[in-house]
Amino acid sequence: MTEPPFPAVADAIRHTLEGQGFARLVGAKVIAIEPGVVVMALDRRPEVLQQAGLFHGGVIAYLVDNATTAAAATMIDRATRSVITAEYKLNLLAPSRGDRLTCRAEVVKPGRSLTVVEAKVHCRVDGAEKLVAVALATIANLDTRTPNA
Amino acid sequence: MTEPPFPAVADAIRHTLEGQGFARLVGAKVIAIEPGVVVMALDRRPEVLQQAGLFHGGVIAYLVDNATTAAAATMIDRATRSVITAEYKLNLLAPSRGDRLTCRAEVVKPGRSLTVVEAKVHCRVDGAEKLVAVALATIANLDTRTPNA
Amino acid sequence: MTEPPFPAVADAIRHTLEGQGFARLVGAKVIAIEPGVVVMALDRRPEVLQQAGLFHGGVIAYLVDNATTAAAATMIDRATRSVITAEYKLNLLAPSRGDRLTCRAEVVKPGRSLTVVEAKVHCRVDGAEKLVAVALATIANLDTRTPNA
Amino acid sequence: MTEPPFPAVADAIRHTLEGQGFARLVGAKVIAIEPGVVVMALDRRPEVLQQAGLFHGGVIAYLVDNATTAAAATMIDRATRSVITAEYKLNLLAPSRGDRLTCRAEVVKPGRSLTVVEAKVHCRVDGAEKLVAVALATIANLDTRTPNA
Repeated sequence: MTEPPFPAVADAIRHTLEGQGFARLVGAKVIAIEPGVVVMALDRRPEVLQQAGLFHGGVIAYLVDNATTAAAATMIDRATRSVITAEYKLNLLAPSRGDRLTCRAEVVKPGRSLTVVEAKVHCRVDGAEKLVAVALATIANLDTRTPNA
Repeated sequence: MTEPPFPAVADAIRHTLEGQGFARLVGAKVIAIEPGVVVMALDRRPEVLQQAGLFHGGVIAYLVDNATTAAAATMIDRATRSVITAEYKLNLLAPSRGDRLTCRAEVVKPGRSLTVVEAKVHCRVDGAEKLVAVALATIANLDTRTPNA
Repeated sequence: MTEPPFPAVADAIRHTLEGQGFARLVGAKVIAIEPGVVVMALDRRPEVLQQAGLFHGGVIAYLVDNATTAAAATMIDRATRSVITAEYKLNLLAPSRGDRLTCRAEVVKPGRSLTVVEAKVHCRVDGAEKLVAVALATIANLDTRTPNA
Repeated sequence: MTEPPFPAVADAIRHTLEGQGFARLVGAKVIAIEPGVVVMALDRRPEVLQQAGLFHGGVIAYLVDNATTAAAATMIDRATRSVITAEYKLNLLAPSRGDRLTCRAEVVKPGRSLTVVEAKVHCRVDGAEKLVAVALATIANLDTRTPNA
């Protein structure tokens, strides 16, 4: 069997992300998927803010979690593997004001059983992109041919 | 001025958490607040799940972020300080199935400028509590008397 | 084949730790090994301090790295698996003065492919143990029967 | 008073790093210091290896800890502030074989009270640089004018 072309992989990942109840609740969108890179974004709405009117830290974590896992998913053999977040660390750098939150996740090191992914989160403030968070994630690649992992 | 009694502090923290648009969207509740400890919980609803029917990782991060920050807030002098999440690391340990998610955050080390907080997240599965995530957070204590921090 | 008794496992782990050139350079000792728990300690010497006379952060990291990995090693099937540190996060909480540094690592969640381990590091100051660091680590369990992992 | 020129700042940082007993024990050298960036390196010797002949994880942590803290130190007002590691997360990506270990730390976000720094560690293997670790650190900037911080 040959590997499916990358657009088919990207469609499958996008479909998975959009099939999440929480994704629909939060309203995040996938902006770009390339091998090793996923970009997600979210527009400002009252429901995704905290008490001071900034994007909520939980929303930033949501984008980081999904984008890093999806970036790892672009690098695996989908016939035999699936991905799951093992852990991540998230540094919040600056108040996340602005009208749009964008998370870009990029694979630092693909691996057979673990993939390490970096993410940077920017807020668009008056048209300029400002770095508001940075993260480092470890994604586990499960062998879907074995009964449990 | 004497310090307010702890129940007043707890009420203020609870009020802050409940004033967040995202908190209302997600539907988390504060279960307990004591000096150095905050417990939050969330019941299962389709909107807080991912595609496999588990609680979404972003929901777990949301609980961890809020509960750890609130636990740090119980330890500061609220007349001169406010809290903000500097960073956290979250390990997802097991599939978060079940009907209720509970996060217990406990201060490991209070400090003048930084407070370190641990969190454990359990899922209630068939009446039993199962550990599904563990986190370690650093909360910054801002001096609200200075112009910017 | 039956599993070897735990004392034999502990001896093998101790032997591995003591076979490291860096372990001999730093001078750390294994104080206790039980299923899921490893305790290591290090006495004060000028060579393990930083410029202010505190135990160096790199020494604390060394103890955390070794003790967490060894704690994970107590939980695996050594006939088919070996352990390797995937990642850890380390919070330094207080100045590490005193005459002895002790790191206690304890498995939070054993797993087939990943083990999550917590560690706490204390300094003995005037006979009292003071918490100086806390860590959270992810240890990968490699399948030694496969050609590469 | 005017700020000292950057070469004087770099000399002061280099002097601090070289004044550490542990630095002399490990044998690390500062290769470069610029505003926001510090590079440190270490040559292969039996004493800095683990049992399989790889650079020890504790040595990698040592380089990460020192280089990230020094990178943060390049960005502060040294008349009123000093730096201390609050926490870091370190992902070990690949076996650290080779004859030289190099850690490059770069400030992601300078701040008044906290500085966030990324680090990448490479091993030189047969003349080629291979990425073996990546880290994300939070450095606290202490106000040295106040009695305790």
